[in-house]
Amino acid sequence: MSAPTRPPTGPRLAESMLIGGGTEAVHAWLARTAEHCWMRVDRVPLDEVAGWRTEPDTGNIRHHTGRFFSVESLAVDLPGAAVPHWRQPIINQPEIGILGILAREVDGVLHFLMQAKHEPGNPNGLQLSPTVQATRSNYTRVHQGKAIPYLEHFRDTSGHRVVVDIRQSEQGAWFYRKRNRNMVVEVDGDIEVHDGFRWLTLGEVADLMAVPDLVNMDARTVLACLPSGGAGLAGAATDAFTTALVRSLDPATPGVHTIGDVLSWITEVRTRTDLHVALGPLAGLTDWTRVDGRIAHRSGGFFTVVGVDVEAGGREVAAWSQPMIEPVGTGVIAFLVKEIGGTLHVLTHARTEPGYADVTELAPTVQCVPETYDHLPARPRFLDEVLTSSRVRFDTVLSEEGGRFLGARNRYMIVETDADVAADDPEYRWLTPHQYEELLRHSFYVNIQARSLLLCLRSLVPRG
Amino acid sequence: MSAPTRPPTGPRLAESMLIGGGTEAVHAWLARTAEHCWMRVDRVPLDEVAGWRTEPDTGNIRHHTGRFFSVESLAVDLPGAAVPHWRQPIINQPEIGILGILAREVDGVLHFLMQAKHEPGNPNGLQLSPTVQATRSNYTRVHQGKAIPYLEHFRDTSGHRVVVDIRQSEQGAWFYRKRNRNMVVEVDGDIEVHDGFRWLTLGEVADLMAVPDLVNMDARTVLACLPSGGAGLAGAATDAFTTALVRSLDPATPGVHTIGDVLSWITEVRTRTDLHVALGPLAGLTDWTRVDGRIAHRSGGFFTVVGVDVEAGGREVAAWSQPMIEPVGTGVIAFLVKEIGGTLHVLTHARTEPGYADVTELAPTVQCVPETYDHLPARPRFLDEVLTSSRVRFDTVLSEEGGRFLGARNRYMIVETDADVAADDPEYRWLTPHQYEELLRHSFYVNIQARSLLLCLRSLVPRG
Repeated sequence: MSAPTRPPTGPRLAESMLIGGGTEAVHAWLARTAEHCWMRVDRVPLDEVAGWRTEPDTGNIRHHTGRFFSVESLAVDLPGAAVPHWRQPIINQPEIGILGILAREVDGVLHFLMQAKHEPGNPNGLQLSPTVQATRSNYTRVHQGKAIPYLEHFRDTSGHRVVVDIRQSEQGAWFYRKRNRNMVVEVDGDIEVHDGFRWLTLGEVADLMAVPDLVNMDARTVLACLPSGGAGLAGAATDAFTTALVRSLDPATPGVHTIGDVLSWITEVRTRTDLHVALGPLAGLTDWTRVDGRIAHRSGGFFTVVGVDVEAGGREVAAWSQPMIEPVGTGVIAFLVKEIGGTLHVLTHARTEPGYADVTELAPTVQCVPETYDHLPARPRFLDEVLTSSRVRFDTVLSEEGGRFLGARNRYMIVETDADVAADDPEYRWLTPHQYEELLRHSFYVNIQARSLLLCLRSLVPRG
Repeated sequence: MSAPTRPPTGPRLAESMLIGGGTEAVHAWLARTAEHCWMRVDRVPLDEVAGWRTEPDTGNIRHHTGRFFSVESLAVDLPGAAVPHWRQPIINQPEIGILGILAREVDGVLHFLMQAKHEPGNPNGLQLSPTVQATRSNYTRVHQGKAIPYLEHFRDTSGHRVVVDIRQSEQGAWFYRKRNRNMVVEVDGDIEVHDGFRWLTLGEVADLMAVPDLVNMDARTVLACLPSGGAGLAGAATDAFTTALVRSLDPATPGVHTIGDVLSWITEVRTRTDLHVALGPLAGLTDWTRVDGRIAHRSGGFFTVVGVDVEAGGREVAAWSQPMIEPVGTGVIAFLVKEIGGTLHVLTHARTEPGYADVTELAPTVQCVPETYDHLPARPRFLDEVLTSSRVRFDTVLSEEGGRFLGARNRYMIVETDADVAADDPEYRWLTPHQYEELLRHSFYVNIQARSLLLCLRSLVPRG
């Protein structure tokens, strides 16, 4: 209400998307930032993680303040599934954090304030991160560290334009009902750019999506929640594929299913899926052992829970310790895409993960760790097509959240296909990217992996 | 995909809304139905409810099959609230039931198949109910009773047109995360009309909204999820109030807040509200006593948990027993409405109830039992204005769900006001009815009381 009048946001987002380049300058800036900013991560046994204790009765691992997060267990019942019952370790982090990106017009074009940030789980050091990445424990200063720069613009948005403001889920296989508040806030007037921050256009970020392990998960989820500006991209197409892509981002383009049909399908899946979960003690899980200061599955698969000591430095030095989840193997996260009636469609899987707040979310066509299936007869549907296709449009390894996951990497792929599914397939539907954008105005429809892939897909809009 | 092509639904819904009348014929049909259809309800002590047992260790009350629902306790923490911590009895019914209404064109006008149905909690016998009202325990035949008529059209919708299909919450003060699947399915071809069923237009139902305790809660929530048909109602207005009302139902009419602003406000409230709840044993609640075969609050307020024996007859006779919640007093559920810039707006309260699936939902301006506050200095905001206003547009007592609540009645009111709230009031916003309709395409934004009131408000569109 009180924000100054500006032109509509959509065309300005499209304009920002079409201005790319500057990749070399960004790499040079990252290199300069890395010179006076470092992080050291050492593994330590879970028993020796300073500030964290294992509760004697439950085996759960908690911070001595009771804040931040805890590692507990989740008992899962999913009747009818290939594995209908299991128990697993899970991170319980009930607090809702803020993932916020500041936006501002620079020379008449929308720019986004990105941060070069270390996280202990990053495989390669600095990654391109949101302006603000703060748990509630952070921003209410449980750390008693220094103030978080730019946080005030997200805690009090009056006078600014709120472009994105929606809680979204994160990995439901590792987190119990984790939600973060994804925000993009446009400000007027001068904003001091602190060391380690830089204004980038959406096109510049899109160019950087092809760089392995650079744009971090938190930046990806926030930027994915931005609308693409639809019709404003129409002139950018250069060939049949990008024509279908640009058309698919236009709100005026219908999909093979209406959004009402898609919502009804989601209702049907969430009603049909009889998921029951219960948090419980980490001690006494049959298939998980705590040996050598870490918790691992007997098969060696899935993930381990480990401890780390972290030391980080720049102008100031900070040190802390924490448990982390270290996944086994590099996953494959892929959209199969197809032009239908001149419009690009994405083959969407309705996926149930035990930690989701609402049972089922829309997920990539393929989301798995292939080596898990090396010795099993059943392969995930469409995995082999993705891995053997010659029609690969995007293929980059990106990292997951480095604050909780140690070296968690997935190969993000976009692959053209001629495959089809029945119109009433219980688990798959063809959606347009714009339908994703409509659903992303609301919480818990689109999972974190699909949000990342949507951003990868939009990065294929030609620039400049 | 596979449904036959029909004209767009919106204009046909508007057309159905504008055809009222027939009230006398409906009353005559209800009277005829009541002649061969009866229900007898007798109170029994909770210890003597056949088929239900009180678990010795927890005091929780469960059906011997473990199905249907249970009565447990909920511990609630809501830091900063007037009462920041309490424990209360609550109904835990994790199954998602179906509330379904069949639609069909009769003489070219959409009609809806309504059922005259007894429920043990109804204060007055038969009420106008959805075509199908079935818990999963019902429709998977735990009762081993006869098949539920028309259920097949909702369990397999292929070939039909799905007009509404969305899970919505119910009373969060009495239910723990109860959700029902609200469905409207349009069918072609002949449908046999069984005894106790009748095709009505939306206008005919709207006329009946002014009759006390007639249109039941389940019918109200399903019909509220229907879009109103917006622009198709434009010609119906007869004065300034109805002009503003009809305008407010048109998707093309902006509100004082954009839907993006409204969604951001909901995100803000749900993030800020630090609600923690935990199910627990019903035994040992400090403020609740189990005496004389019922569970009551020491103050005599809120509600009691009671047992009933039910016998119902028509062509066949059925008998069962069950626990029910019997609220104390008749509530007031009111929208304050105001014409702003020629468009009717509804003053909406962001309300947190412990049993909600997602913390906070949009609620009426006023939702309370006034006598609770008779001896307290603080009155609910806007209650006195509602009770003393001379600008009352709607005022009818309606019943809540008679399958779980015994004689639960609320006075539903729509009252014009000149009151205002700050544009950034943390708890209240002015919304247009069309914005409600947009939100009702998704789960858990609009609470059950506001859904009923929205239907009451739309019933004020002039007919015939």
